[in-house]
Amino acid sequence: MGVVIAVDAMGGDGAPEDVVAGVRMAVEDGSLAVLLVGDPAVLKPLVAHQPGIEIVPAATVVPQTADPAEAIRSDPRCSIAVAAQAVRSGAADGLVSAGHSGATLAAVTLIIGRQRGVSRPALAAVLPGALRPTVLIDAGANLDSTPEQLHAQARLGTAFALELLGIEQPTCGLLTIGEESGKGDLRTKAAHALLLADATLAYRGSVEGRDLLTSKVDVIVSDGFAGNIALKATEGAAREAFRRLREQVTGAPATLAGLQLHTALGRVRADLDPDTYGGAHLLGAEAVAIIAHGEARPHGIAQACRYAAAGVRLGLPARLAARTAVGSP
Amino acid sequence: MGVVIAVDAMGGDGAPEDVVAGVRMAVEDGSLAVLLVGDPAVLKPLVAHQPGIEIVPAATVVPQTADPAEAIRSDPRCSIAVAAQAVRSGAADGLVSAGHSGATLAAVTLIIGRQRGVSRPALAAVLPGALRPTVLIDAGANLDSTPEQLHAQARLGTAFALELLGIEQPTCGLLTIGEESGKGDLRTKAAHALLLADATLAYRGSVEGRDLLTSKVDVIVSDGFAGNIALKATEGAAREAFRRLREQVTGAPATLAGLQLHTALGRVRADLDPDTYGGAHLLGAEAVAIIAHGEARPHGIAQACRYAAAGVRLGLPARLAARTAVGSP
Repeated sequence: MGVVIAVDAMGGDGAPEDVVAGVRMAVEDGSLAVLLVGDPAVLKPLVAHQPGIEIVPAATVVPQTADPAEAIRSDPRCSIAVAAQAVRSGAADGLVSAGHSGATLAAVTLIIGRQRGVSRPALAAVLPGALRPTVLIDAGANLDSTPEQLHAQARLGTAFALELLGIEQPTCGLLTIGEESGKGDLRTKAAHALLLADATLAYRGSVEGRDLLTSKVDVIVSDGFAGNIALKATEGAAREAFRRLREQVTGAPATLAGLQLHTALGRVRADLDPDTYGGAHLLGAEAVAIIAHGEARPHGIAQACRYAAAGVRLGLPARLAARTAVGSP
Repeated sequence: MGVVIAVDAMGGDGAPEDVVAGVRMAVEDGSLAVLLVGDPAVLKPLVAHQPGIEIVPAATVVPQTADPAEAIRSDPRCSIAVAAQAVRSGAADGLVSAGHSGATLAAVTLIIGRQRGVSRPALAAVLPGALRPTVLIDAGANLDSTPEQLHAQARLGTAFALELLGIEQPTCGLLTIGEESGKGDLRTKAAHALLLADATLAYRGSVEGRDLLTSKVDVIVSDGFAGNIALKATEGAAREAFRRLREQVTGAPATLAGLQLHTALGRVRADLDPDTYGGAHLLGAEAVAIIAHGEARPHGIAQACRYAAAGVRLGLPARLAARTAVGSP
């Protein structure tokens, strides 16, 4: 049996056209199938009978301005809720959504369910560190996290780095300001004490915003607010640095130097491209769930579907649950 | 009468050698004088009778691990407290410190004093935006800020952009996650309502981490925790992008292309260099106070002294107080 991914066709800046185009790319080689959830009248002409894609009707879409949990509770026919129900019922093995991330988190939490001992699933972004990939958890799903939730994230992120990225004995650090350990706001100080006391973690103390790409630690633990800001600042600065460099070279005549710079830029850009994975795993749920970038293009959506399928094949949720259960080493 | 800046010689990663070297550069053209605060036995050989520098003895240094306010209260003979007292007494016109930023904030608040209506001075970093300089306030002085403090920062940052940077009708935005206005953690939502209700501000709603260098708004308002993380992530990502590009080109033979790329890289690097200003103004204090980068090299310290002197000549604290007083337009 092949892997089946439920995709919310109605979520994301380019929905539904870009989502459908990405899904068509993802199913092309037959390695996975997709349940495409949304309005059939809109989706049918876009899908055009491509094998591997089945349309599942959903009557509504969660508006960007809605309170996420409230929206899911009051409207079980919205596309993200129907997609989550497909995973819950076993019709699909995993979920991909480029829509409202709060609504996706709510649908996963309320419909798919959480692994034992996890009060809030957290978003694990994988960054291109200098030496190896780096996990940033939480990258934006939860705001107002508690120190206990940050502790749970450290365990989930460590297990993820080991199981999915193959990093042995992953080290972790707490995102804060200043290098001295324990420096930061009240929440960070309390979380620092919890991480320090957990002998199952290879906790290295504080890391700063500048350490996101330096491989100082393998897992960077943060609340979703600061984590998302750090992630976006990193992406934005790299993009802006490249833009300004390109401007310098475009001003010059079309020389060999210009050509070589474009090649080098292209290579490093690809390396730092947020669409490498297409999205981020929501860890701590009972099934694989990927939040894709809201601005994902078809290529990013296809990557997100493949990334979800890889997590399903690995049995990621069960592996994380086994590693992070209370009392496990 | 020339401008006199009190400099904490004992603070910063390269103290006292780099601080003294920077101060020597700053006084060279005679445009400002420095009171160099610290241990005379250490400082005298480094200063070597250079005109424009007077050593002011201080017995101790605030340790990096101390509780800042407690340290200032219990040890008025530490270098940062003595430097602040020099400003308070009128012996100096402004303050520069590359040391413990919490201790500098505490010394400024407790000894120099705050402008009326400001409960906490805030750090205003100036970033190289795409179109013009951008102010980020607070860049790391205050953690656990209240919505009311964020509102005061918006007013201070707007006045600073106008008075020091010469930006007419500066726009401001609130650093948060997601583009929809009012999205974010509880504090951000409350601050959003306050900014929206203040007709003296050109408030443009939410900005994200990726907007630090794009000139989307002129003043980015943030609590010091997320602000510092965003600032460091921006600096770190630009640095890492350049490092990787340089690696690509170093691998190639020494060609004209390589040389031209190095030139372009150098230009954009200089543009994004955090030492352009050498530090950041602590706004809302009764005198000019600059927190220099902890890792500032001599060039950065010299820039910080010149930046402080420029603020003194402009009469910045009085101008900000006039513009941000309650009831002022």
